[in-house]
Amino acid sequence: MEKIKVVIWGFGAMGSGMAEMLLKKKGVDIVGVCDRNESRVNKSMYDVLGLDRGNRPEVIIKENIEDIISEKYADVVLLATDSFTKNAFDKIKFILENKINVISTAEEMAYPQAQSPELAKEMDRIAKENGVSVLGTGINPGFVLDLLILALTGTCETVESIKAARINDLSPFGHAVMEEQGVGITKEEFEKRMEKDSLAGHVGFPESIRMIADGIGWEVEKIEQTKDPIVSNTERKTKYAEVKPGNLAGIRQRGYGYVNGEALIEMDHPQQILPEKEDVETGDYIWIKGTPNINLQIKPEIPGGIGTIAMCVNMIPHVINAAPGLKTMLDLPVPRAIMGDMRDMINK
Amino acid sequence: MEKIKVVIWGFGAMGSGMAEMLLKKKGVDIVGVCDRNESRVNKSMYDVLGLDRGNRPEVIIKENIEDIISEKYADVVLLATDSFTKNAFDKIKFILENKINVISTAEEMAYPQAQSPELAKEMDRIAKENGVSVLGTGINPGFVLDLLILALTGTCETVESIKAARINDLSPFGHAVMEEQGVGITKEEFEKRMEKDSLAGHVGFPESIRMIADGIGWEVEKIEQTKDPIVSNTERKTKYAEVKPGNLAGIRQRGYGYVNGEALIEMDHPQQILPEKEDVETGDYIWIKGTPNINLQIKPEIPGGIGTIAMCVNMIPHVINAAPGLKTMLDLPVPRAIMGDMRDMINK
Repeated sequence: MEKIKVVIWGFGAMGSGMAEMLLKKKGVDIVGVCDRNESRVNKSMYDVLGLDRGNRPEVIIKENIEDIISEKYADVVLLATDSFTKNAFDKIKFILENKINVISTAEEMAYPQAQSPELAKEMDRIAKENGVSVLGTGINPGFVLDLLILALTGTCETVESIKAARINDLSPFGHAVMEEQGVGITKEEFEKRMEKDSLAGHVGFPESIRMIADGIGWEVEKIEQTKDPIVSNTERKTKYAEVKPGNLAGIRQRGYGYVNGEALIEMDHPQQILPEKEDVETGDYIWIKGTPNINLQIKPEIPGGIGTIAMCVNMIPHVINAAPGLKTMLDLPVPRAIMGDMRDMINK
Repeated sequence: MEKIKVVIWGFGAMGSGMAEMLLKKKGVDIVGVCDRNESRVNKSMYDVLGLDRGNRPEVIIKENIEDIISEKYADVVLLATDSFTKNAFDKIKFILENKINVISTAEEMAYPQAQSPELAKEMDRIAKENGVSVLGTGINPGFVLDLLILALTGTCETVESIKAARINDLSPFGHAVMEEQGVGITKEEFEKRMEKDSLAGHVGFPESIRMIADGIGWEVEKIEQTKDPIVSNTERKTKYAEVKPGNLAGIRQRGYGYVNGEALIEMDHPQQILPEKEDVETGDYIWIKGTPNINLQIKPEIPGGIGTIAMCVNMIPHVINAAPGLKTMLDLPVPRAIMGDMRDMINK
């Protein structure tokens, strides 16, 4: 059997991380990279990664996807360019129409039915017409605050309510994330940016909440989200941020899914730099109230960057095996590490 | 759409528990119960459960499956009669040949490829010939020490080794389990029964280990199991057992899966009564060494009885939806609680 052929579209932290991971795996080749960043275009992927090409064929990073992809050129495209379904849609359409499967890192694509039901239907139609499939995944949404919760409910006779928290550390991230998450700003600046709706925060609560509800058969009437400042009592300093006491170490975002008038699904996601400065322990936490009750913790939390890279790569065989259409993590077998030859996971 | 029709074969703790759970669910009917226990044969299922039948049709428990099942009589049979594949095989064959899907509680059926590869092939062939599918599942094997571990590896770029422990409390179980697990016996009696190989202990390590290894693509060369006495320092007493200091509170069973000469998969399963008497906290624990490392705990452990009942019932829609053949938890979408109408989970 030929090796599995992968194209990577978007070569930032996620896309380049997937390339590094794929280069360590058996039975799979990277056959194209698309990126519009001037510092990378027309360069060898291996040079950009700082890796030795060995006797692998050269891969030159190209600016235009049309210069890489033609019909059935690859088995799958890993699309790491966007956070929102509406921005990723045209790219996904182009790939599907070339009869190639897609795995998207866009947070909203983890469950596009939540906020873009029309686009979701359209992607499903196009994928089926072309005999391929499209999946959105990542660590969160995609695993910690949705798939893992759903899997645990599988051991329950009944579920009354679900709470989950992901408490993480933003310290390793760069300037862009500090800016998006309001790290270091004053409380006044926080209020101003909240009014202008210019604090991105975490994208994914509506997706995770709907995935859980649809997965277990609850009807969600309403989803609410709040953002509160995490005001630092201490001075916190990292390579990319500086927080004075009284200013923001980050934002605490919460999400609520209402079923029968009650917030039966509750999610808590405080993101800040150096949480240990005030004795906050990072971790992923799930509390299911039901028969039985389940209390899970993963400490420290599963790291966001590696986790998203791994989820996208590890789902490649499942997406190739899937029946055509728009898929979610609800539809496919559990993700798992690939320590052998990737081709062994492809159904004949 | 008609309601989903379920037959339960074996009406002990597991089978009757599934009946109670199913009676609380929408879109599903129990259309037959088979059990050979004299105290239950020819009685109403509702009387045996001590539940009001309401306006549901009567279900009389029958001794012979031939008096219940005919071709396509039900959508699925929940088979809760055995622990070993070879004992369940003829029953599974009979059900499949009547073109009905099967979910088995037999521990070895969670991954029959591990110890009965020939029977596994045969079941796969019969299932495909008859256009239906067969799955073995439960809390363990089936979830805690295999599927949950596999799902976590999905967030890993690479896995170096896996350790897991399930520390539980046998106190709620009855005489049969106390006998199988050697609760209350002396160390001399333990040695004698180990020589005669008459201590059942936990059935499922080879299944869990092979499922993990096959799932991530490791080749297991050898599986080893050990059983050690848990000697009590205190007096422990429950309704069904009495342990004197110096005698056995239970057995600690360990399993090792060797890959490239090393025990890369390690499982630890100490089972005893009243572990809190010596400050042992029950729980499910998973430690993955890899990129990233993952440390998970669920405290207390997911209870075995409810967990197995729920897993079997919650997998009904996935088994009905599955392509024909022998399935394992590796092949199907994640289990999840069913809080809505079960029919909504069936693919059209």
